[in-house]
Amino acid sequence: METEDYVVQPIIDVSPPKWHLGHTTWFWETFVLVPYLPDYRIFHDDFSFVFNSYYETVGRRVFRADRGNMTRPTVAEVYRYRAYVDEHLNRFFEQVELTPDLQALIDLGLNHEQQHQELLITDIKYILGHNPLFPAVDMPIDERMPDRPGQPVTLAEGVYTIGFRYSDSSSFCFDNELGAHKVYLNETTLAGQLVTNGEYLAFMEAGGYTNFKYWLSDGWTWVNAQQKQAPLYWHKVDGQWHYYTFDGLKPVDTDLPVCHVSQYEADAYARWRGLRLPTEFEWEAAAGSLHWGLRWEWTNSAYLPYPGFTTAEGAVGEYNGKFMSGQMVLRGASVATPEGHARPTYRNFFQPDKQWQYKGIRLVLR
Amino acid sequence: METEDYVVQPIIDVSPPKWHLGHTTWFWETFVLVPYLPDYRIFHDDFSFVFNSYYETVGRRVFRADRGNMTRPTVAEVYRYRAYVDEHLNRFFEQVELTPDLQALIDLGLNHEQQHQELLITDIKYILGHNPLFPAVDMPIDERMPDRPGQPVTLAEGVYTIGFRYSDSSSFCFDNELGAHKVYLNETTLAGQLVTNGEYLAFMEAGGYTNFKYWLSDGWTWVNAQQKQAPLYWHKVDGQWHYYTFDGLKPVDTDLPVCHVSQYEADAYARWRGLRLPTEFEWEAAAGSLHWGLRWEWTNSAYLPYPGFTTAEGAVGEYNGKFMSGQMVLRGASVATPEGHARPTYRNFFQPDKQWQYKGIRLVLR
Amino acid sequence: METEDYVVQPIIDVSPPKWHLGHTTWFWETFVLVPYLPDYRIFHDDFSFVFNSYYETVGRRVFRADRGNMTRPTVAEVYRYRAYVDEHLNRFFEQVELTPDLQALIDLGLNHEQQHQELLITDIKYILGHNPLFPAVDMPIDERMPDRPGQPVTLAEGVYTIGFRYSDSSSFCFDNELGAHKVYLNETTLAGQLVTNGEYLAFMEAGGYTNFKYWLSDGWTWVNAQQKQAPLYWHKVDGQWHYYTFDGLKPVDTDLPVCHVSQYEADAYARWRGLRLPTEFEWEAAAGSLHWGLRWEWTNSAYLPYPGFTTAEGAVGEYNGKFMSGQMVLRGASVATPEGHARPTYRNFFQPDKQWQYKGIRLVLR
Amino acid sequence: METEDYVVQPIIDVSPPKWHLGHTTWFWETFVLVPYLPDYRIFHDDFSFVFNSYYETVGRRVFRADRGNMTRPTVAEVYRYRAYVDEHLNRFFEQVELTPDLQALIDLGLNHEQQHQELLITDIKYILGHNPLFPAVDMPIDERMPDRPGQPVTLAEGVYTIGFRYSDSSSFCFDNELGAHKVYLNETTLAGQLVTNGEYLAFMEAGGYTNFKYWLSDGWTWVNAQQKQAPLYWHKVDGQWHYYTFDGLKPVDTDLPVCHVSQYEADAYARWRGLRLPTEFEWEAAAGSLHWGLRWEWTNSAYLPYPGFTTAEGAVGEYNGKFMSGQMVLRGASVATPEGHARPTYRNFFQPDKQWQYKGIRLVLR
Repeated sequence: METEDYVVQPIIDVSPPKWHLGHTTWFWETFVLVPYLPDYRIFHDDFSFVFNSYYETVGRRVFRADRGNMTRPTVAEVYRYRAYVDEHLNRFFEQVELTPDLQALIDLGLNHEQQHQELLITDIKYILGHNPLFPAVDMPIDERMPDRPGQPVTLAEGVYTIGFRYSDSSSFCFDNELGAHKVYLNETTLAGQLVTNGEYLAFMEAGGYTNFKYWLSDGWTWVNAQQKQAPLYWHKVDGQWHYYTFDGLKPVDTDLPVCHVSQYEADAYARWRGLRLPTEFEWEAAAGSLHWGLRWEWTNSAYLPYPGFTTAEGAVGEYNGKFMSGQMVLRGASVATPEGHARPTYRNFFQPDKQWQYKGIRLVLR
Repeated sequence: METEDYVVQPIIDVSPPKWHLGHTTWFWETFVLVPYLPDYRIFHDDFSFVFNSYYETVGRRVFRADRGNMTRPTVAEVYRYRAYVDEHLNRFFEQVELTPDLQALIDLGLNHEQQHQELLITDIKYILGHNPLFPAVDMPIDERMPDRPGQPVTLAEGVYTIGFRYSDSSSFCFDNELGAHKVYLNETTLAGQLVTNGEYLAFMEAGGYTNFKYWLSDGWTWVNAQQKQAPLYWHKVDGQWHYYTFDGLKPVDTDLPVCHVSQYEADAYARWRGLRLPTEFEWEAAAGSLHWGLRWEWTNSAYLPYPGFTTAEGAVGEYNGKFMSGQMVLRGASVATPEGHARPTYRNFFQPDKQWQYKGIRLVLR
Repeated sequence: METEDYVVQPIIDVSPPKWHLGHTTWFWETFVLVPYLPDYRIFHDDFSFVFNSYYETVGRRVFRADRGNMTRPTVAEVYRYRAYVDEHLNRFFEQVELTPDLQALIDLGLNHEQQHQELLITDIKYILGHNPLFPAVDMPIDERMPDRPGQPVTLAEGVYTIGFRYSDSSSFCFDNELGAHKVYLNETTLAGQLVTNGEYLAFMEAGGYTNFKYWLSDGWTWVNAQQKQAPLYWHKVDGQWHYYTFDGLKPVDTDLPVCHVSQYEADAYARWRGLRLPTEFEWEAAAGSLHWGLRWEWTNSAYLPYPGFTTAEGAVGEYNGKFMSGQMVLRGASVATPEGHARPTYRNFFQPDKQWQYKGIRLVLR
Repeated sequence: METEDYVVQPIIDVSPPKWHLGHTTWFWETFVLVPYLPDYRIFHDDFSFVFNSYYETVGRRVFRADRGNMTRPTVAEVYRYRAYVDEHLNRFFEQVELTPDLQALIDLGLNHEQQHQELLITDIKYILGHNPLFPAVDMPIDERMPDRPGQPVTLAEGVYTIGFRYSDSSSFCFDNELGAHKVYLNETTLAGQLVTNGEYLAFMEAGGYTNFKYWLSDGWTWVNAQQKQAPLYWHKVDGQWHYYTFDGLKPVDTDLPVCHVSQYEADAYARWRGLRLPTEFEWEAAAGSLHWGLRWEWTNSAYLPYPGFTTAEGAVGEYNGKFMSGQMVLRGASVATPEGHARPTYRNFFQPDKQWQYKGIRLVLR
């Protein structure tokens, strides 16, 4: 990575790497050090609005679209900010006794940090993958990891409990996973493996992107408005499909799971096959028997509150609940997800047109 | 109504009344008369693409946004078209024996017609309600019908069957209601009455439209981008809130159920009260004990397929399934819904920002 | 014309015919009857903001883009308004003695009326020409009038006087023509005839719309953004170019002067020929020797004030001066211009992308 | 300057500093080294489309809006590119004999370079001036240079020769200055000094930005759409107007010439004073008696070709001519203009809404 790569925001969804570093640092400063470390002095008065993301409670935001025009603070300054906050966090851990509430806040901060680690990878891929030079860089993830052989998983009809239960586990969860509750499922069989690039290519070659009948109405509008013909990062070079990877532009490997597809594409592919995507409940009920973790797996469940969901007071309460409109749930994890961040109850969510995460397709076979 | 009122399309959602007349007529011509009435000659070659709505299978569409610029065919011609098709439909009913498939098609046509009857009313209201003269017109609906006294309805925790069953009823249903299936519900209590204008005014006066914390993120963006301060058709005149009705501009009647709110507004109102909207499953399970029918009632369920949903072959298959993305379910019926068109399993659906139907709010109390 | 044709506004430039009728009537009421006819009572309180166009001085406007959604007042009401104002204008002419200032105001009103007569024709053509049925209607203009044979006109190098002089004429002029002043011109020869459809077709067939080098930068952006391939109203049907006329869709008549071209197209055509458009000064200096009046003739002069131009006080002062930015001058008149409205010093003006007037091309040959 | 400052493109008009460096280098490589230096090998195959600006002749462009998302090539690589080209240019000057055509091309390259030197300054100012930290940087220009005392300059009525004549001067000119020609001017007096910040503040405080009557119609639309209340870079802090300078955010110095105004603002200010802007011809005729060079001075002349203007063949011909639409002429030079780049016949041009150059106002007094 070069200094230049830290600065830009090519689309509104993709934040500058520099901003991710500053924002996660700001999270610790604002929610932990300022309220809980005696005599803590903030690093810079203006960083609060420079690195706030969407916490309206905390004060005026920098408009998200402008993040990519802020050349200052420099990358070096952001690293200094991070070192300063790291140092004071060490002091905090030495001096302050962790109450359960404080421990919960620390856990939230760590998980927030992990989410931005994954976003850093996907955002850097977007920035470099849209550069006409298609630069190769070293990244600590394995984009070429193949799917493990797996068998279809059949769920019996009946009542299943969905959601995170503290009794089962000592680990952290986000508020949107809480409220374990019963869900009635019909008999269902989920595929044992993810859809591969080769299988997806067959859909493309069968005219998948040009026949409205495979597409949701919004998906068809999207395909036409964006002139989509393939997943994100795919380019046809001399008649052969290539895609951008962190190794540069490479021929598509037909054995690997398809990646960087929108929910519209996942749904259209399933329709073309005469099949469908799972719900998030089917996925969670089957998770114990699935090999998962290569791709975030699109479900056909809208991101909505579980029964009994409530929003926490204060800025932390803005974390998840307010996004429960217009987004679809993804389950699992991806090659870019940090170790230890995944669990079967985890609910990831994006608008159905978003492609830039490592997102793939698992079908329901019947 | 004047001839002029039939012609315009002030926003993309609102079709010209003339178009509704032509489109429902075209539906009968295209799907019934052309295939099933021997020797039928179509009324006009060009009306097929003029009055097609979104049936991509049937051929090139007139772009929806351009409907409001088509001054021809004239209103009189459309009525002639309608008379011609009516006459041939009579002939069809005399000559053609109704197979079950044909009967199903006729039922679909009738229900399609009823949907457009309601749209005609809501679209005319939009056209006249955005005219600076606020014209009064005669409409065969009662906008001033008060809610009946009702008691809260409590559902016991357990498994409920949701969806249309032919065994229970001989009536028609749309494909999106089929696939009766079991759903597990927690104990829930739904309000016995709809939220009134007076109750909603209290939310407005408490700063409901200016405090982000009551709003979904998309809702807050919408409120700010559209500078929303009140439900659709509300205007503050000399310090007092008025709204447009078919009787002209009138002071808001605080006893009537609030109307013309988006799902964002319904959700924000519920949050301000510390409550929530029902899911469509809760609503359907409780429907037998509710007084409903004044307002389409926003639920917090996304419009998604029931288990086992399949899309019919051909143009009729484009009816409902392809809209199963980005929309929220409304249940019940409204003062503008034709007699006989409502039933407890009916799933109406709109994007969460849409206000121009007769949409209201029923809360879940606990 | 049908009632429906009076109502719509397919693009922001094209006003509903009903609006033209109401607006010209409102002009007489507001600027003549209200200030000068004793005891005059205005026809309707709300018509002032319904039919105001861009006179900010007179009060709040109806947003121009909304004109096409106003189904009320009806066409019949607008004609009643017109009859009422006509009757009172007659009374005004009987009762009120015309001072020079009043006479000037009357002249302005008559010329304003004539401008809207031409706009009525061009706007109706736009409305019907964008209807998929391409309706034929009777119009009191001759779209098929051929150009008269004419010889090139050569101007000698030297000083010419440009602009309207009252001494030369007793007729009316607009404020933008005043300020007769001297202009130095080089020797120039203007073509004796307008460019024909056939000549323009040769440009099209030579790839004129696909080669950037003929186009101004803004013009090239426009061609690509709008996917332009021909003048407005041209459609290729079964391999042959047709255009919409008031007689319906007809094969292009290659002998007639090309019409409905933007200034970008006029300029590109001239460049393709290795020639150029005249300035408005060259045109005016040559006007006495030209046959003109079939097409408004695009010049390559920006619409800017003559030396000594001043803006009149009050609403009438908003007439012309404030548009002196971003527009290009057209000279002459067209088949749609009312008799007596044309003169050699007349300065018509439009943005360079506008096509919907009867606009053509005269070249400078050297 | 920091590396980060080289990368971003906050608005489409403002190119990344890195791009300016690469583009001017590419100009020398493409137009001089490749055709004229034997055995020259281009530095990098892809830089041609990365650093092309608007030369359609030379091949596919990088979309202008994407310049700000290209983090590669890095700043260091661009400097290496520059060093490589500099070195080969030295070799070129040693090896190649300069024909007059080649000398003209070199002159064009040098002047192109100077233009981008000025753009570099204005673009860096935009990038830093829109950073919430308002960073101070060292720049080799004097933003605080005061206007020299000057007397009004009166032109006698008569014929003046306008445009560049080689006979008068040995220096370079752009193609748009060629074609010296006679222009007839009325008697006119130009102000001896530029409008100051203090004078402009009086306009602001008199409600200049809120009264439509001072504004061109397009200007009034711009003021409202952009919610303009002051020149670019002005911010009201604690009730006092400040502006961003390369020294950071400072109180406005009322004695300095106003800067960073659009032509709409310059025109509105003049109208408020009951005066007007000069034409470019008046300016050029008076230039010998004016003190100029602090601000590019807005004229009220559209940027159009002089008589006899022709476009050069090939890519160099795209330099100026194709922009002769929709732009207004500025005359003079600014504190950011490189020494030796200015001359009385120089025609600078921008759309009338652009503010980010060092643009000021000189009035015509009568």
